[in-house]
Amino acid sequence: MARSVPAMLFDLDGTLVDSVYQHVGAWHDALTSMNVPLSVWRIHRKVGMSGGLFVRGLMRELGRELDPSTAIELRRRHATAYAARFHEVVPLPGTRELLAMLTQLGAPWAIATSGSRDVADRTLALLDIPAHVPVVTRDEVEHAKPDPDLFLRAAERLGARIDQSIVVGDSVWDLLAARRAGALGVGLLSGGYGFDELQSAGAYRVYDDPADLLAHLDEVGIRDPEG
Amino acid sequence: MARSVPAMLFDLDGTLVDSVYQHVGAWHDALTSMNVPLSVWRIHRKVGMSGGLFVRGLMRELGRELDPSTAIELRRRHATAYAARFHEVVPLPGTRELLAMLTQLGAPWAIATSGSRDVADRTLALLDIPAHVPVVTRDEVEHAKPDPDLFLRAAERLGARIDQSIVVGDSVWDLLAARRAGALGVGLLSGGYGFDELQSAGAYRVYDDPADLLAHLDEVGIRDPEG
Repeated sequence: MARSVPAMLFDLDGTLVDSVYQHVGAWHDALTSMNVPLSVWRIHRKVGMSGGLFVRGLMRELGRELDPSTAIELRRRHATAYAARFHEVVPLPGTRELLAMLTQLGAPWAIATSGSRDVADRTLALLDIPAHVPVVTRDEVEHAKPDPDLFLRAAERLGARIDQSIVVGDSVWDLLAARRAGALGVGLLSGGYGFDELQSAGAYRVYDDPADLLAHLDEVGIRDPEG
Repeated sequence: MARSVPAMLFDLDGTLVDSVYQHVGAWHDALTSMNVPLSVWRIHRKVGMSGGLFVRGLMRELGRELDPSTAIELRRRHATAYAARFHEVVPLPGTRELLAMLTQLGAPWAIATSGSRDVADRTLALLDIPAHVPVVTRDEVEHAKPDPDLFLRAAERLGARIDQSIVVGDSVWDLLAARRAGALGVGLLSGGYGFDELQSAGAYRVYDDPADLLAHLDEVGIRDPEG
């Protein structure tokens, strides 16, 4: 029998690096600077979506339209505010060890983020990502999360079947995208969502953070082939 | 029959003002500056406890002891970092309207916060709190949340029975304290906890924020006496 090891498709912000609260703060800065009042927890619950859907969801919360130039300016100000907070961002506990273990075990893995290529590159510089690992960013697909495109592209670039892949993410949007893609979803609490929010969005399993996932890799079907 | 209107005992941060994420960021700043690494979501889940219990919980997460002088310095740095972020703090949607409505309906209400008197006073200046409204702070009780002391004292100062009072808070610690006090607890999502986290901690009802609670006051037994 051929050995079948699931491919792991990772979200980036809140899943591999501890950056969700900095993104939340940066959106809050951007919105406040443009006199668009929105409670911080509502921003938190939308982070991880594509920027376009984020702004659309925001308009729904506010009950009003934002004209396209305001929406573009908002995203520009978020990028500036996030850059100012980026020095606070560090890898989550266990990220390096988890990724190194997957590489060592020969389990294929990739990264798929709703962020743009330039922001992703700055974030990835905090980690040690081998050159052969696919990194799919917002720029490469038509629709970001909760659409399934990012994860589908990541599986394709690994040459893996999406129905034998495991999506790992911290947000409801990752897990909804996983279900639409036909992959299993594993939730991490490290983005600040509640356990049940992730479970209700269809998580197969929920762990604290990459360190906790590493300690339970056998539960999701990744084993030492020699073991 | 005597009319019985429940007394409402409000938490402050995350319940009446949108300040939880600023407290989280300030603790993260303080911890980072002292080379104590802790993921931001773990800080978020502890905010609302007394500072002393927060530091104790922190030690449990870290699996090591902090000596008393480090713990004191940590709380000092949090206070400084929070002051630097305080300009971002605003009342939550509906706070002023909710409190004004309670006053108008003759429903007794008070504020009970794990924060110290000086921080609370700065926060309360963002709201219009009538002089007769009791405000109980950390300094006035032996134990803060999740111990019941703050809410018990608040009910006492209103001359209200705690078993006819409703505690309103955004954190698990408020709701646990409410149960220990023997009051009903109402959870608000505005601190960024998940719905089920609040429900699991014993919330009688969960609303989005003060505006949503105001729209459903009749559900918790507060009515227009003329209505």
